[in-house]
Amino acid sequence: MARPIIALLTDFGVQDHYVAAMKGVMLGISPDASFVDITHDIAPQDVLGAALELQAVHAYLPAGTVFLVVVDPGVGTTRRALAARTDRYGFVGPDNGVLWPSLSVGAALVCVDLIESRYQRATVSKTFEGRDRFAPAAAWLAAGTPLDQFGPPVSPMWLDVPRAQVREGTVVGEVVRVDRFGNLITNIDRGLLDSVASPRVVHVNGRLIAGVVETFADVPLASPCAFVGSSDRLEIGINGDSARARFLAGRGTRVRVSSAA
Amino acid sequence: MARPIIALLTDFGVQDHYVAAMKGVMLGISPDASFVDITHDIAPQDVLGAALELQAVHAYLPAGTVFLVVVDPGVGTTRRALAARTDRYGFVGPDNGVLWPSLSVGAALVCVDLIESRYQRATVSKTFEGRDRFAPAAAWLAAGTPLDQFGPPVSPMWLDVPRAQVREGTVVGEVVRVDRFGNLITNIDRGLLDSVASPRVVHVNGRLIAGVVETFADVPLASPCAFVGSSDRLEIGINGDSARARFLAGRGTRVRVSSAA
Amino acid sequence: MARPIIALLTDFGVQDHYVAAMKGVMLGISPDASFVDITHDIAPQDVLGAALELQAVHAYLPAGTVFLVVVDPGVGTTRRALAARTDRYGFVGPDNGVLWPSLSVGAALVCVDLIESRYQRATVSKTFEGRDRFAPAAAWLAAGTPLDQFGPPVSPMWLDVPRAQVREGTVVGEVVRVDRFGNLITNIDRGLLDSVASPRVVHVNGRLIAGVVETFADVPLASPCAFVGSSDRLEIGINGDSARARFLAGRGTRVRVSSAA
Repeated sequence: MARPIIALLTDFGVQDHYVAAMKGVMLGISPDASFVDITHDIAPQDVLGAALELQAVHAYLPAGTVFLVVVDPGVGTTRRALAARTDRYGFVGPDNGVLWPSLSVGAALVCVDLIESRYQRATVSKTFEGRDRFAPAAAWLAAGTPLDQFGPPVSPMWLDVPRAQVREGTVVGEVVRVDRFGNLITNIDRGLLDSVASPRVVHVNGRLIAGVVETFADVPLASPCAFVGSSDRLEIGINGDSARARFLAGRGTRVRVSSAA
Repeated sequence: MARPIIALLTDFGVQDHYVAAMKGVMLGISPDASFVDITHDIAPQDVLGAALELQAVHAYLPAGTVFLVVVDPGVGTTRRALAARTDRYGFVGPDNGVLWPSLSVGAALVCVDLIESRYQRATVSKTFEGRDRFAPAAAWLAAGTPLDQFGPPVSPMWLDVPRAQVREGTVVGEVVRVDRFGNLITNIDRGLLDSVASPRVVHVNGRLIAGVVETFADVPLASPCAFVGSSDRLEIGINGDSARARFLAGRGTRVRVSSAA
Repeated sequence: MARPIIALLTDFGVQDHYVAAMKGVMLGISPDASFVDITHDIAPQDVLGAALELQAVHAYLPAGTVFLVVVDPGVGTTRRALAARTDRYGFVGPDNGVLWPSLSVGAALVCVDLIESRYQRATVSKTFEGRDRFAPAAAWLAAGTPLDQFGPPVSPMWLDVPRAQVREGTVVGEVVRVDRFGNLITNIDRGLLDSVASPRVVHVNGRLIAGVVETFADVPLASPCAFVGSSDRLEIGINGDSARARFLAGRGTRVRVSSAA
């Protein structure tokens, strides 16, 4: 069997030892595990933000990867803990919707309630289930433990992900992510975009961008541009600068695409 | 032999290449080594902060892990460099007390003065012993080199870690760490806490918290709470917010627990 | 064959999933690859900054390491993509000069134009060639694919790296990097420094430092000092404080060394 890959996504930051505690626990169970840190800089308790990051990245990891997601405002409460498998991946995390957008695209989904104490640490902290409950489950799953050993089947909680819509020939969506460069990633995918006849104009916070180009370099330096980005979604950027700052935009900012024909 | 695990703890930050230089040197010696980054965001030269992080996390790593700790205000001076072994772990770092709290709990401690030049790089920089002296020693130790090969036995330097005390039925401790969420981690452990009769009140910076609960979720949103956290120490948090900001607290802030009976 | 090592250097930051997407793609090609993150905190699009970091660190990685460098203001344009080999290392990155300072020191350099589509992802995003073009090439190179399979030989683009000079017995250089501690790393190497007769004085932004010492600890706390740092370049630091703040200095700040004899 190949070396197990476990990809981590949390809101723990990297200044504390919390991520290392989880990795230590996992290496004790699955000594050959190889870790990929997706990010630990999700804003504290931002379930939607984490869900969108996981959805955007997970398909680039090799088949067999187990995703350990700990963004968990309900830690210590009665919210369930989940382990899941699709035909390609394993997932472990709290049942608060954070896994939902990634699970809903996978074929052959099976999802269980993580209650089997044999796959948890002997004592489970009420404030750090990541270390005592989720991390051990991820390591056992990566090591090949069958999913049905962890607990009975359940349906994962659904998450209300904002979706773009078409209204009278105009696509109305919103910014769902802002990256380090200040690019605004929207929830408007290529299919929706193509439903609007060219030439197109994009409206963001009362500002107008004429046309959809292929990349930054197609507009002059310091000019705004709209393009289909690396996640196959419409993005708004500025060649050599930050669109977040220029447009005073952030997650939730409305974006409209209409035809100028 | 299993793949060697080396866990790193420094104040180098991650914007420079210093951590990668150390990892490169170690991979040249122990090509199968697997690294766990505890954190590199210790405040510059904060020996006590690093000592407390190491103490809090080390027991979660598998037996055999070697800890490489480089928080070293005395780099280039005559302060000693140490390698140590307990029954479970190896440790390498400057002899400034940073290892002490973790070494003092370990059984079968042996500690040596890292002077054997064969386990150092040919030239040792006076400003980066992490790369030229500590990293090679950690890699050789992880690769199985017996401890007594590195130098003669010595006693490690002691560190003055603030301890909580009981005075007339009241436990007096202090905040020793603040995490990303703004939770205040104190030096009051469960045993000390239990020495105070319930119901209890907790005083922080002139503010009062009634009762010790099990977790955030036991109090309303935006309410402060005191609970025994994931390190088995008393913590003060706010459900959904930062206790650091609300209480204007930080390391060294006094915390008192007394009985309201 | 030993486990392939791939060292990453980007301006992607760590709050987004972009680095993990590249690692996922690489693990799909080279499942045993081991990653070393040099840094992802290069200032956005700072080609010179990345070039200097790569030059400073690369020789500490083991022979056979492949360096994947993605600091790429020209992404999506017709600028070339490169793969290169020296006698010790492999390199992959955009042809914008970022690799040049490291390639120019290597013996037996061969450099090719990354055009062979078989070693790219099926679709190459115009805004994320790091994931679709550079990462696959790095993984294939690390897995042993001969360099000439990737494309025809080319000459890499040259980068204008600021060089120190001697003028009438005075060495005139500049700050090329500032580290986390606020130390100012210059482009004045030990050889140039030795060309000035002792005793020497160092001028930075109109301030004067008397003498070149061995390390911080040779001056009193809070005093400035000049010393040959861990990269064998003249550095300016302050014992226990930040020279960047004290001298209001940054990359490009002029530094002069002259004889006080």
